[in-house]
Formats: sequence, structure tokens, C-alpha cells
Amino acid sequence: MLSTMQDVPLLISRILTHGSTIHGTSQVVTWTGESGPQRRSFAEIGDRSAQLAHALRADLGVVDDDRIATLMWNNSDHVEAYFAIPSMGAVLHTLNLRLPAEQLVWIVNHAADRVIIVNGSLLPLLAPLLPSLTAVEHIVVSGPGDRSLLDGASPQVHEYEELIAGKPVTYDWPQLDERQAAALCYTSGTTGDPKGVVYSHRSIYLHSMQVNMTQSMGLTDEDTSLVVVPQFHVNAWGLPHATFMTGVNMLMPDRFLQPAPLAEMIESERPTHAAAVPTIWQGLLKELTVQPRDVSSLGQVTIGGSACPPSLMKAFDELGMRVCHAWGMTETSPLGTVARPPAAAIGTDEEYAYRLTQGRFPAGVEARLTGPGGELLPWDGESAGELEVRGPWIAGAYYSGPDSEPLRPADKFSEDGWLKTGDVGTISPDGFLTLTDRAKDVIKSGGEWISSVDLENALMSHPDVAEAAVVAVPDEKWGERPLATVVLKEGASADFETLRAFLGEKVAKWQLPERWTVISAVPKTSVGKFDKKVLRKQYAEGELDVKKL
Amino acid sequence: MLSTMQDVPLLISRILTHGSTIHGTSQVVTWTGESGPQRRSFAEIGDRSAQLAHALRADLGVVDDDRIATLMWNNSDHVEAYFAIPSMGAVLHTLNLRLPAEQLVWIVNHAADRVIIVNGSLLPLLAPLLPSLTAVEHIVVSGPGDRSLLDGASPQVHEYEELIAGKPVTYDWPQLDERQAAALCYTSGTTGDPKGVVYSHRSIYLHSMQVNMTQSMGLTDEDTSLVVVPQFHVNAWGLPHATFMTGVNMLMPDRFLQPAPLAEMIESERPTHAAAVPTIWQGLLKELTVQPRDVSSLGQVTIGGSACPPSLMKAFDELGMRVCHAWGMTETSPLGTVARPPAAAIGTDEEYAYRLTQGRFPAGVEARLTGPGGELLPWDGESAGELEVRGPWIAGAYYSGPDSEPLRPADKFSEDGWLKTGDVGTISPDGFLTLTDRAKDVIKSGGEWISSVDLENALMSHPDVAEAAVVAVPDEKWGERPLATVVLKEGASADFETLRAFLGEKVAKWQLPERWTVISAVPKTSVGKFDKKVLRKQYAEGELDVKKL
Repeated sequence: MLSTMQDVPLLISRILTHGSTIHGTSQVVTWTGESGPQRRSFAEIGDRSAQLAHALRADLGVVDDDRIATLMWNNSDHVEAYFAIPSMGAVLHTLNLRLPAEQLVWIVNHAADRVIIVNGSLLPLLAPLLPSLTAVEHIVVSGPGDRSLLDGASPQVHEYEELIAGKPVTYDWPQLDERQAAALCYTSGTTGDPKGVVYSHRSIYLHSMQVNMTQSMGLTDEDTSLVVVPQFHVNAWGLPHATFMTGVNMLMPDRFLQPAPLAEMIESERPTHAAAVPTIWQGLLKELTVQPRDVSSLGQVTIGGSACPPSLMKAFDELGMRVCHAWGMTETSPLGTVARPPAAAIGTDEEYAYRLTQGRFPAGVEARLTGPGGELLPWDGESAGELEVRGPWIAGAYYSGPDSEPLRPADKFSEDGWLKTGDVGTISPDGFLTLTDRAKDVIKSGGEWISSVDLENALMSHPDVAEAAVVAVPDEKWGERPLATVVLKEGASADFETLRAFLGEKVAKWQLPERWTVISAVPKTSVGKFDKKVLRKQYAEGELDVKKL
Repeated sequence: MLSTMQDVPLLISRILTHGSTIHGTSQVVTWTGESGPQRRSFAEIGDRSAQLAHALRADLGVVDDDRIATLMWNNSDHVEAYFAIPSMGAVLHTLNLRLPAEQLVWIVNHAADRVIIVNGSLLPLLAPLLPSLTAVEHIVVSGPGDRSLLDGASPQVHEYEELIAGKPVTYDWPQLDERQAAALCYTSGTTGDPKGVVYSHRSIYLHSMQVNMTQSMGLTDEDTSLVVVPQFHVNAWGLPHATFMTGVNMLMPDRFLQPAPLAEMIESERPTHAAAVPTIWQGLLKELTVQPRDVSSLGQVTIGGSACPPSLMKAFDELGMRVCHAWGMTETSPLGTVARPPAAAIGTDEEYAYRLTQGRFPAGVEARLTGPGGELLPWDGESAGELEVRGPWIAGAYYSGPDSEPLRPADKFSEDGWLKTGDVGTISPDGFLTLTDRAKDVIKSGGEWISSVDLENALMSHPDVAEAAVVAVPDEKWGERPLATVVLKEGASADFETLRAFLGEKVAKWQLPERWTVISAVPKTSVGKFDKKVLRKQYAEGELDVKKL
């Protein structure tokens, strides 16, 4: 029996039309440094998005699902690209300007981008790459920057404002299939080539509704959101789309991501919400001790990307800003969980513990934990397994180019289609996720999992230990066993037996490492995380002086 | 270019599974009169919904898209039917217990309901109809009531609790097509047979997300919602589904809809939200003057069904309850608009004016106004036209039985698929709807529309006028012209010339009625609305003593 409801697709053009009419007076404010903030209403962005679509079609010949890349900061022009490109049926490809040059080249060529819209301030990054970009026919430059860097470039060069000037301010947006590609974002895995995630109109629309639900970010048109998380990073956590659904104002920092201008824009524009990774906030807190600013407008701060240290959360609480943890990844659009404590915990001692978790799954995200043998584990808050998720805004494959079938590597997607997140943790009976390890850092010992992070935290609580990293090493009997690598504090003298006994008070006996070594420093990645790959390699190649207890 | 997102359907079983696990401790509290409230957790409702589905399949042989009717008050068992029936793939058909017997019979037969789940207290209503119900094979009785009324009934009779007892508490819910029928609700038009609206899993899922968005009802698991609006009335405005998405507790009044028990349950259960039509609230306010109760928990009251009189809204404001207008209809699932004032109006003189409108359209509901000639009218807050809407939870046809194509009557659906609501009003530039008339009550005079309600309100402000109804009557020159029918106050002596001059100060000259008559009372419908059909008929048959000025 078929329903009698209208068959109306969930399209990004609908979000744009809604936001630019019903919330036409809401604003996107872009920070421009000394020349004062640039203010653009949602109505103007609606007009200019239509103009951009006309320009792309009429002047640049964009058709069908052509990929149009953006190499841009967070700003109004980038918001226009967000709406114009998918709404006309093309695919928005956001480029991560922090990637190494060779990866950027690989990604642009892999996606076969025909057009790149670039901020003038990023031309020093783009210009040297142009000779390597095989499919790019047009460069559109937005905002200040030295155009002479493009002299002699082989793609045609256009000025954003000149291109859209005089074009009609309405566009007859096509009625697309909601499952059609809308946006493309590459995730740089630690191994192999970057993998493309292709969001659909449907996935972005549903994700936007979720962001606006009371138990997610819960913003209204009374709010202004400071969007620090880059637009090239999982659609800025869905904020540009979600805000157009409900009229939330956006404050965009453009390239002014340093603590001082961030503090200045908070004081002068008074956002009520902000979204960013923890490192940004650590810098901001430090800045505020040097140069106090009134940041009291910021009632809510969404933190994701990595866990917020409890000390940072407490520091924010003291400033009257409430940190709300969220967990997600490029493959989850990204909203996977949001850590709003359940009603029963509010005002109790448990409230803070809930806030330190990764958060609770919404109805749109199904979750399960799988153990070392692939078995399903209970949601008991204790059984640790790899998190797998399923839902209408979760990736089920990776893009592999226009002529190939999507990739479904077995370590990323289960046979029944769930995404294997690579994160290991527990889920409480009321659905709160606590992550402890990356799956690749877990030690699989005799059919049980040992959390490397638990061992590290326990070790680092010893007064003689400066840093400690625990990695899995092969073991004939158990498959894998933990290797403890320890950095001792200057002048400290603790021996391995002492440390092992200390650890024995905190974790189960079978988890205690037999293999120990002292190192001078834990190797780190470019973003400061422990680089366990290096340690595993050093062990395998016999470079570590390991003692077996 | 296809997206790489998972193809996961939007299903009611997902809402159930989510609510009964992650929000498992949230509760449905059903009022039972003197025996104390019945409390059931979402987890228990999850278990019992699975049991009900097993019983329907194994014991009653329900398969495919069989229609299962409910003739029930708002209570926990009814919530279980809401989830079990669509989740297993069958179709929930909610029966309006206020309909005349012959309409109920027609509807049950038209839907070919195989099973009816009925509250024991409603057996006096159902039993006499049974001989006329051609397809009904099973009656399942829930809750207290005299079973002997079913003695000798030809369908098999079951006890709800006995039927589900011992059945498994999990069910392998099928992965349905999200466009499949989930629920069926008939709307009783003023003319012709009742029309069925068939909601899909998709439409209900999306509508539930909308209900939970910040600018709709905006509830969280800290809230308890008193669901007075019947579950047989457009899915209780979507609340049972929406609450399972976010863990909002529900307080269900069952058959205790009188002002005194409502006041008592508010005082003792302390709901934070309530949803009902205005008449319920008028009764409650009166009750509170007789028997004061602490109703201070009720921060938010959603009112729909018909407009809330300003006096009632003010009275609620004084009690600390904030009334929020919403507009919708059976064909719109029903959430069409919600009257949350825009941020810029909050705290200003305009705030109250915004709250008196029908409200603002969400992104999921596209709206347009069509004028007398079918032309599109601007959103200027002044041009009045018939409201047409479009969206994924808006009906595009009516159910016409298992073997017929859906009905798309031209007066209800436009050629391009929009729903013609039959409501006439204006839309402001920021998307707020103000309804003035039903389309059939508007006077189409020489290509312009005259609002009968405006003329009536103006007339009724004259001190000599007790009531006034204005209807369209045929006119050779203008097509239609207004006929003013006036009920004078006792001892009043105003003549038509005086009234016409009085009206002339308030409305445009071309809108002034030429035809006038005095009547003893305005004919009313069973729910107390002006019955203009009767007046038009009396005029057509020459029964009114009309004077032409």
C-alpha cells in the first residue's frame, strides 16, 4: 500500500530558498581584519548564490555533476559556493588548505575538478600547483590577494565579483534526485591515498535537521554561531546548511584564526555559540589571560575533532561558557554523538561525567560495538569494542573516480554495510559513547582487548614518568602484547619492576606489559598526537632496547 | 554522480528502537482516574510493541499491509499500537471516536480494517456497529470496560494483555521502503465521503525530526508533554513519534478530558508542555477559577486546530504559561506553521502580534498564495490568497481503496501537485502566515476577494449587534457579493443604513454589502462554528427577508 504523501526530494536548494526568504534578515558576518566586518544578509546570499550559479553555467560552462573545488577560508563567498554549486546539480569539492602540496594535487586530479574558487589570500598556495592540475579550466578569485601570482597560468582566471555581477538573482533550481552527489570531501588516512566521501542532498538535508534538533546544537535565530571549524572540514560540521534552516546568524573568521583576532571578534560581535577543535580554545584561553576580553556572550561551545581535556572544560565553565562535546568524522557528516547529559543527571554529580563522554547517539545514527572476534558487545558501559555506525548520513563507501565502482575496503565497511569507525570504546545502557583508543592502537591479546590509552594514563600518573606510550607488539602465545615505552622525568630513577607494580594497582594483572623500554621522547605527529606507527617500526627493526620482565 | 552515503530508509521501527534503548527510562504516564496513574517506561513500551507485533502476526495472521484500526483514547497501549503496527509493515488506522456511527462504519469498511484494537470504555460505541463492519475479523480489547457488550459478536474477541503475554520482547523489524504506508487517517470533509490520508514511514520520520527542531515544539528529555490532542487526530500532532526520538516524557489523559481531571493531572504530574485545541483550555481556565490548582509547571502550551482567541492567550500569559500557536491539518501531518516570533521581535511591541499569527513555515513546508484568478500573490503581509503547500510530509492525494488510483480532486490539489489548503490569508515577507477565511467563505467580487471574517468582526464591534455572519451570494454584475446577516441585541434599533455607514469607516467602500437581513441567530455547526452553508441555502431558497440598499 503506497502512501498518498507528496514525493518531494530533500534538496539543498530548498534549504537555500527557505533561509534566504523566511530568514532573509539573518546575517553572515565575515571578519576582514582592519577593514571592519563584512555583513551579508541571508537574502543577499540567496541572490548572490543564484548569480554564481548563472555565472558557472553561462560563463564557465559548468554542466551536470562537474566538480567545482573551493580553496577558501570560512566566509560569505564560501557560503554562496556551498549553496550555488549543489543546488544547480554540480558537486562542491572543498579542499583542505592544510594538506601537503602533493596531496592537494592528487585530490584535485582525482576528483577531476574543472573549476577552483580560491581566496586571494591563498594564491601563494595554489599558484605553484597549477601546472600539475590536469582538469582545471577555470580559476575564480575571491577577496584580497596578489593576482599577479596567476600571471601566465594556463586555466582562465576570473574575478568572483566581476563574474557574478549583473547576473539574475533568481535561478530555477532543478528538481534533482535527493540521492545525487552534492559535496565531496577527502579524508586523509594515515595509510594509502586520500579517500573521497560523497555527501548526497539527502544526507546533508537530514544532517541539517539533526543539527537543529533540541538535543544537538539546539540553536535558533536568536543565536549567532562563530564557525571556527573550517568549511573544508566536513562541511564545517554542517553549520552553514543548518543555520539556513533556522536563521541562526554566522560569524566567519576568514583567515583570522589566531587567538587575538578570535578574542576580538567574540568581544565585538558577541556570538552565543562557537564550534571548533580543542587546540583553538586552548590558544584562546591563554590569550584571555594576556589580554582580557568580554567573551560572556558565548554560552555554548561545541568541541569536536578530538576530546576536550577536562582541565579545558573546567576553565570554560569558569568563564561561563558551557562546553558540549561532539564526536564524528568525515564519514559521518560529521554528527555522530553530542554530549548533552540526560535529564536525570542534570544537577547531579554525574552530570560532569556525562559531559566528558563523546555523547549520545541521535535516532539517525545506529551504533554497535564489535569485539576482537567480530562478536557484538553489550551496551553496558564496560565492554570495549570497535564502534560501527549506520544511518542516512553515514558513508557506505569511498569515491574512486568517475569510471570506477565505489571502494568498500573491508577494514572500513562491514559486510552488512556498517561503517567501521576505527574507534574503540564503550557504550552505556543509555547510549553514551566513551572512546578510549583508535582500533589500530588497541592490543589484541588472546582474544581480549587491552586499551593502550588506559595503560598510558595509569603510567603517566606515576611521579617519575614524564610521558608514556604503549603499543602492541607481536607475541607468539597471545597474538599481541603491550610494549611500554617510558620517558622518565629528569633525575627520576624508577625501575621497570616498580612501574609494573604501580600499574598493577590500577589495571587487571593480565593486562600488565612484560616488555619495557626507556625512550627520550614519544614521537609525535604533525598535530602533536603520539605517533605509535614510529614506535612499532622501531621495535620491529630492533632499534629499541627492550627489557622483558 | 552518485553519493557514497549508506542507503538507510527512514522507518518508524528506528524511532521505536532508538526511544526504547537510548531513552529507555523516559515514561508514558496514563491517567486512570482513581486508581492512580499507570507508568510505563519507553523500554517497556519497546518490549510490549514487539510482543504486540508477534501477537498480530502469529495469533491474528496479520500480513503485508493489512489495516489495523484503533478506537482508543490517548494511553500507553495506544502508543504501542502506534509503533508495532507500522514497524511490522502493516498500516495503523486511527478511528475518530467523535464521528457519527454511520461515518465510522463507512470508514472502517472503506479501509477494509481486519482488526480493531479498542479501549474497553469505548465498547458501548463499537458494539452496535459490529454487524455492519464487513472486513473486521478480530477485536482486541484494552483496559477496563464491560466485555459482555461483545457477547455474540461475529469477529473473534481477544484481551490485549492476554494476547501479548509471553511473546518475545524483540522483533526483527523488516527493512521496508520508506515510502510505504505507515498510518491512515480519514478527514471528514463538509461535503462528500471522508477522505483518507496515508502517511508514509518517511513522512512521519521527517515530521518527527521537525517537531523536535528548536523552532517547532523544541522539547527535550527534561520535558513532559501533556498530550491532550487525541491520538486519532493527525497522530496526536506527531508527539508520540517525536517524543521517542528525543526522550520527552508523555502524560496521557486517556478518557479523562474534562477540566477537573486535567487540572488535577497537571498539578500532580507537573508536565512542562501541553498540546490541545483552544476549547480544552477555555474549560481548564474556568475550572481553575472554581478550584485553584498549581499549574505552574506548564511553561509552554501548543495550541492548534483553530486560532487561539487573544483573550485566552493573555489569560495563559498571566498564569505563566506561554501559548504557542501552530497551524496544520490532517493533510499536513499536521505541522504546517509554528508561531515562534523572530529574534528581532522578541521583547518588542511586535512580539505579541507575531504570536497571534498562525506562525512561520519550516524548511520542510513550501508555501504559496494564489489569488482569485489562480495567479501567485506576493508575501507582503497584505495580499490575501488561498494557501497552497508542498513538502515531504504534505498529502498529494487521497486514499480511494485498495483497487483504485489515489484521488486528486482539482479543488484540493493543484495541477503541479501542491495541496490547496482551503484556507485564505496573507504571508508576511518573513514567512508568517495569517489566516482570515476558509476559501469557501471568501466573497469573490469582480476579480477581488472580500474577507467575510473582516466584515463580520467589523459589524460585531457595533454596540447594537450581537452576532453577524457574512456570506457570498451570486451577483450578475460582480459574480459574487456579500450578504450581511445580523443578529441584533435585545431592544437594539440600528437600521441597515446606520450599520452600513458604521462599516464604511472600517473597510473599503467596494467591499460594503448591499444585501442585508436580520436573523434571530446565526446557524452553527456541531462544534460551534458559523454554519454558512445553511445561510447560503436559506438565501438561495428565498427563506431570508433580504433588503437591498
